[in-house]
Amino acid sequence: MTEGAPGRSAGDRFALYDLFVAYGALIDAVEFDAWLALFGAACSYHIVPRENYERGLPAGLVYCDSRAVLEDRIRALREANKYNIHIDRHLIGLPRLLGEDADATLVEAPFAVYQTDQEGETRLFATGLYRDRIVVEAGDLKFRDKLVLLDTFAVPSLLATPL
Amino acid sequence: MTEGAPGRSAGDRFALYDLFVAYGALIDAVEFDAWLALFGAACSYHIVPRENYERGLPAGLVYCDSRAVLEDRIRALREANKYNIHIDRHLIGLPRLLGEDADATLVEAPFAVYQTDQEGETRLFATGLYRDRIVVEAGDLKFRDKLVLLDTFAVPSLLATPL
Amino acid sequence: MTEGAPGRSAGDRFALYDLFVAYGALIDAVEFDAWLALFGAACSYHIVPRENYERGLPAGLVYCDSRAVLEDRIRALREANKYNIHIDRHLIGLPRLLGEDADATLVEAPFAVYQTDQEGETRLFATGLYRDRIVVEAGDLKFRDKLVLLDTFAVPSLLATPL
Repeated sequence: MTEGAPGRSAGDRFALYDLFVAYGALIDAVEFDAWLALFGAACSYHIVPRENYERGLPAGLVYCDSRAVLEDRIRALREANKYNIHIDRHLIGLPRLLGEDADATLVEAPFAVYQTDQEGETRLFATGLYRDRIVVEAGDLKFRDKLVLLDTFAVPSLLATPL
Repeated sequence: MTEGAPGRSAGDRFALYDLFVAYGALIDAVEFDAWLALFGAACSYHIVPRENYERGLPAGLVYCDSRAVLEDRIRALREANKYNIHIDRHLIGLPRLLGEDADATLVEAPFAVYQTDQEGETRLFATGLYRDRIVVEAGDLKFRDKLVLLDTFAVPSLLATPL
Repeated sequence: MTEGAPGRSAGDRFALYDLFVAYGALIDAVEFDAWLALFGAACSYHIVPRENYERGLPAGLVYCDSRAVLEDRIRALREANKYNIHIDRHLIGLPRLLGEDADATLVEAPFAVYQTDQEGETRLFATGLYRDRIVVEAGDLKFRDKLVLLDTFAVPSLLATPL
């Protein structure tokens, strides 16, 4: 597997699929250390309503521009989760390869997230589109830049888990 | 890639996956010219409630028997969308190869479509099954016949976008 | 394809994907004989709320420890379905390979099931995670042990179809 070229061979394509599968599965399993390991040494993680994104408005719900900030955010979420107990379930569509720039591969995937509360009620929580830049580090695919485009602006401002 | 044989090699299988991924993504991104390019020169596009289909009733919600009619329909939808502003989100399951007839490959895939309205509320819009005939044209996979089997008959008669 | 090693080559990986795709599609198509053929000669099929599973509580909603019991259960469901007419729709995420033990491959996949009733209303029925042990029998992948972990404990005790 060469730098910046995931998806060209069958092995690479499955590695790409596995990256997205692990992304959702590890959130749902509340395994955040393993989840963080899916990101590159340098990385960003943004959650932005699609409307803001298309209008070029910078206002995002979550804005982590470095790995340190992302790790911080996850620590805070873990604390918050002690008081907001629920189960997440990610359904992620097949990743779509959009092309490559100088040092990364652009990949999109649609998603739906369901949450089940302590009363056992399951609700659709959010739908949207991942628009990510993927790199190869030490032979493994990693998220360099993860952009979570939400279909709605009307999400709770306190997100209890990553999306 | 040979005529009528998608799915036999890894490359063909990924090409098939990509066709379905692009189908949903391009509707959601409101890129209808690129979406139309996923269909063959000769093509059909039908939306039929599953109940009608199983009883052999011809009544469909959308019935496009040629590429010209489909293009016409898309033009009309674009006009209607000026007054029905919403965001679509397709979640499409892995395609399932069912076999081949003389000149096409039969493929099914389940789907769920969510819509988010201008108030930011996201709702399940429809679920169903694509049952499609796929052909190879100039080396690319194309939809020859797209049949959208809806799980319900109770959909708005004016569909604002393709499903 | 060698015993206990699905997923290693591209062909094996697609065979694994196809197994999960067929699993959902055959329930939705009410083809239960073909669905039963996806299970091994020795097999189990359990539906357990995730909470019970994590606490080690044995109480499951469905508990079939042999093929004979599973076939029996399916016969009963068919009878019940005469009075509970609805359409199922499974959306299943990409399978995730977790590893292998002595004689099987552990695979997980998230799912959402929608049901449409006779009035044509479609609702989210359940979300959860399949956690399965897959084996190779006569060259085909089969479910040796299928564990359906439900995100909620609040499901109707009378399940009208398998999940």
